[in-house]
Amino acid sequence: MKPAIKELEEKGKAAKAASRKLVFLPTEAKNKALVNIAEALIDKQDEILTANRIDYDLARASGMGDAMLDRLMLSASRLESIAQDTRTVAALPDPVGEVLETRTLPNGLQISKRRVPLGVIGAIFESRPNVTIDISSLCLKSGNAVILRGGKEAINSNTALARVAQEACNQAGVPQGTIQLIESTERTLVNQMLKMKGIIDLMIPRGGAGLMKLVSENASMPVLTGGIGVCHTYVDKSADLDKAVAIAYNAKVQRPTVCNALDCILVHNQIAPAYLPAIASEWAKAGVEMHCDEQTTAILKPIPSLRLVPALDEDWGNEYLSLQVAIKVVDSLDEALEHIEEYGSGHSEAIVTEDESAVTRFLNEVDAACVYANASTRFTDGSQFGLGTEIGISTQKFHARGPMALKELTSYKWIIQGNGQVRP
Amino acid sequence: MKPAIKELEEKGKAAKAASRKLVFLPTEAKNKALVNIAEALIDKQDEILTANRIDYDLARASGMGDAMLDRLMLSASRLESIAQDTRTVAALPDPVGEVLETRTLPNGLQISKRRVPLGVIGAIFESRPNVTIDISSLCLKSGNAVILRGGKEAINSNTALARVAQEACNQAGVPQGTIQLIESTERTLVNQMLKMKGIIDLMIPRGGAGLMKLVSENASMPVLTGGIGVCHTYVDKSADLDKAVAIAYNAKVQRPTVCNALDCILVHNQIAPAYLPAIASEWAKAGVEMHCDEQTTAILKPIPSLRLVPALDEDWGNEYLSLQVAIKVVDSLDEALEHIEEYGSGHSEAIVTEDESAVTRFLNEVDAACVYANASTRFTDGSQFGLGTEIGISTQKFHARGPMALKELTSYKWIIQGNGQVRP
Repeated sequence: MKPAIKELEEKGKAAKAASRKLVFLPTEAKNKALVNIAEALIDKQDEILTANRIDYDLARASGMGDAMLDRLMLSASRLESIAQDTRTVAALPDPVGEVLETRTLPNGLQISKRRVPLGVIGAIFESRPNVTIDISSLCLKSGNAVILRGGKEAINSNTALARVAQEACNQAGVPQGTIQLIESTERTLVNQMLKMKGIIDLMIPRGGAGLMKLVSENASMPVLTGGIGVCHTYVDKSADLDKAVAIAYNAKVQRPTVCNALDCILVHNQIAPAYLPAIASEWAKAGVEMHCDEQTTAILKPIPSLRLVPALDEDWGNEYLSLQVAIKVVDSLDEALEHIEEYGSGHSEAIVTEDESAVTRFLNEVDAACVYANASTRFTDGSQFGLGTEIGISTQKFHARGPMALKELTSYKWIIQGNGQVRP
Repeated sequence: MKPAIKELEEKGKAAKAASRKLVFLPTEAKNKALVNIAEALIDKQDEILTANRIDYDLARASGMGDAMLDRLMLSASRLESIAQDTRTVAALPDPVGEVLETRTLPNGLQISKRRVPLGVIGAIFESRPNVTIDISSLCLKSGNAVILRGGKEAINSNTALARVAQEACNQAGVPQGTIQLIESTERTLVNQMLKMKGIIDLMIPRGGAGLMKLVSENASMPVLTGGIGVCHTYVDKSADLDKAVAIAYNAKVQRPTVCNALDCILVHNQIAPAYLPAIASEWAKAGVEMHCDEQTTAILKPIPSLRLVPALDEDWGNEYLSLQVAIKVVDSLDEALEHIEEYGSGHSEAIVTEDESAVTRFLNEVDAACVYANASTRFTDGSQFGLGTEIGISTQKFHARGPMALKELTSYKWIIQGNGQVRP
C-alpha cells in the first residue's frame, strides 16, 4: 500500500476510535479544549505565522494571484479573530445529549430520543487555513472527530494550526485522534477519502465550485455543501416605497459577493413607474449594473447616468456575486411566484408589501430555505439567526436547510431502557 | 418523446403543482381525505377485488410462487386492515406547520423555523398493492405529493386503489395531482424516475434487496431505505438469568423474519456455563438452529437434542431472517462492544445486565439507531415507539434514524418577518 493511503487509513481508524469516546466526553472538557485552542493561537502565533510565511512565499513565487494570496495569509489580527470565533463556539450550548423526545410505554419501557454526534466528519478545503480551526472547533463542540484535508499551498500553515489544536485538545483530556490533518498532499487522496463510507459519516467540502462538484458527485457518504444563492426580492403593488428601496439597496449593495445578496428584483407593474426610478438612482450611486427586461428599460431609459443593459435569458437564475442585478416587471404575485419557482435556487427569497394576504401567500408558497417579508435577504446567516455560528447555508431539504451550525452536525439515537420486557 | 416518458413528466409537473398547494392545505381537509379513503376501500371493495383477481390469476398463470401470490392477494379483511391503518394516520397529529424554533431579534425581526413538507415523494415498490394506500396516506398527511410506481404484476390492483384514493381526495378538496400512479409498466421508467431530481425530492423504494440497491445506487435525489438489521444481544456477567432467557428467546423467536429479530448473542464467559444451557433448551423447543463458536460448542455439546452447527466466519454479521442464531462467548463488555462495532448494521442492539455502569457504557458507546438495556430488540417499531405508524427503519445517521414516520417525511423552512429591516 502507498504510504499516503496507509496514513489516511490509520487516521480513519484513529478518528473512528476517538469518535466513540467523544460521544460521552463532558461538555466542560470540550469547552476547555476550545478555550485552550483560542489561547494557543495567540501564544504560539510566532510559530504559526512563520509556517504561514513559508506557504505565502512559495505561493507568491509560483505566481498565485493577489486575491488567493490574501486568502492564504494569516496575521496576528486574523489569528485573534479565529481565536474569538473559537471562544464563541465554546460559549454555545452543547448539542450532544439533548433529549428530543421521551416517553414511558404502558409496559414500563422508557424510550428517549437523544441527540448524538454524527461520528467522523471529513473536511476537504482549499487555501484558507482558518478553515482548519473553524471546522475543528465546530466538530469538537458537536462531539465529532474530524479528518482535515487542506490545500497543498497551505500545508505548512495547516500543519502548524492542527498541531496547536491537537496539543490544546490533549491538555483538556480530549481523546487522541479527534482532530487529524492529512499531511500528504498527494492529489489522489481526495478520491480515496470520498470512498471511506463506513469511516467518514459526513463530508464537508469548502472551496470553489470545482471542489464542490467533485465532492458532491463522487462521495460515497452524505455531503453537506453550501448551495448557491440566486435570491429574488419581489416588490408588490402594495409595497411601502421607502422600505422597498432600503431593502433592495441593502440586499444588493451591502456585501455583493456573498450568497444571500440580491440577484433579481421582480416589480409589480402598478408600482414599477414609481419604484424603479427610485431604486435605480440609489443603485446607480453605488455603481450597480442593471440587466433590464423591456418594460424596465422603457421606464428607466429616460433617466440619465444609469448603467442599463438589456436582460438576456441567462440573466434569469444567475448568481452575480457582484454589483449587478436583473430587473423584471411582473403583472401579479402569481407571476412573481412562478418566476421564483423556475429560477430560484431555494436559498433566500423576499417580498416587500403591506398587504398581509400577499405576505401569507408568499411565505407559504415559496419553497426556499429562508423566506422573508419586508426585510433584506442579507440576514440569512447563522450568527444573525441566533445560532451563534455557521458552517454554511444548505439549499437542500434533506437533513438540514438554511444556516447550518452545531445541531446540523448531529444525528440522534433511540435509547430504550427496560426491566426484562418482551414483545407480546 | 415516448408516451411513457411523457406521462411521467406530466405527472411530475402535476405533482409539483399540487405540492405547492399541499403546504398550506388545512389539516381537516387532509384528515377528511384519509377518512374518505378508508370508507371508499370498504364501499368499493368489489371493484378493487375484481381488479386484484385479474392480477392474481395472471400471476398464477405465469407461475408466480405461493409466497409472492400471497403478497399480491387482497381480500375483504385485508382491505379492512388497510382502511384501519389509514384511519390511524388520520388520527395522528399533523406535522406540517409545527414551529420548531422562534425568536425575535433586537432589531425586531421575527424568525421562526417551521416544519414543511419535503415536496414530491417518489415511491417505487414491488408486488404488495397495499403499499399504494400506505404510502399515499403517509405522504398526504405529511403534505407531500406522491408519484407511485408499483410492480407490473399488481398494475390492475394498484390502478383501482389509486383511483379510489384520488376520488376520495378530490371529494375532500385535496389538490388534483396529489396522488398519482404511473400506469405504464415499461421497465425503463424506473431509471427515468431516478433522474428526476428537481421534481422528486425524496425516493422511497419498497421491496427486495435488488430494488433497494438499484434505487440507492442510481437515484439522483435522496433515498429513504429501510436498512438491514444485524441485531446483537449481549448477556453481561451481571445479567439476571431469567430476564436474559426471556429477552433472547423473544428477540429470536417471536417473529424471526423481520429486521429487528436477534441474529447474534454475545455471552460473557462468567455467565456462559449457566446461561447458555438455559437459553439453548428454550430455543431448541422452538426449532432454532444455533451457530456456535468453540467455547459455546464446548458448553452445549453435552446437552441432547440441540441443533448445533459450528459458526463460520460468515455467521458474524449475518442477518438470518429465520430461526437461526449465532452464539459467541466473550471475555468482557469491551469485547462485546468491539464485536458489535465490527459486525452490527447500526439497527438495534441490546445489553442484559443488572450492572448500571455496564448499561451506561453500552447505551453510550454502541453506535446504532436503537440501543436497549434489558429489553427485546423486537420493540424497534414506529407503532411501539408511539409514532403511530412507520414507513421503515433507517440505519443511516443523516436526516432520519430508526423508525421513520410522518416527521421524517418533512423538512423545515426559516420564515423571517420584518418591517423594513436591513443589515448594517
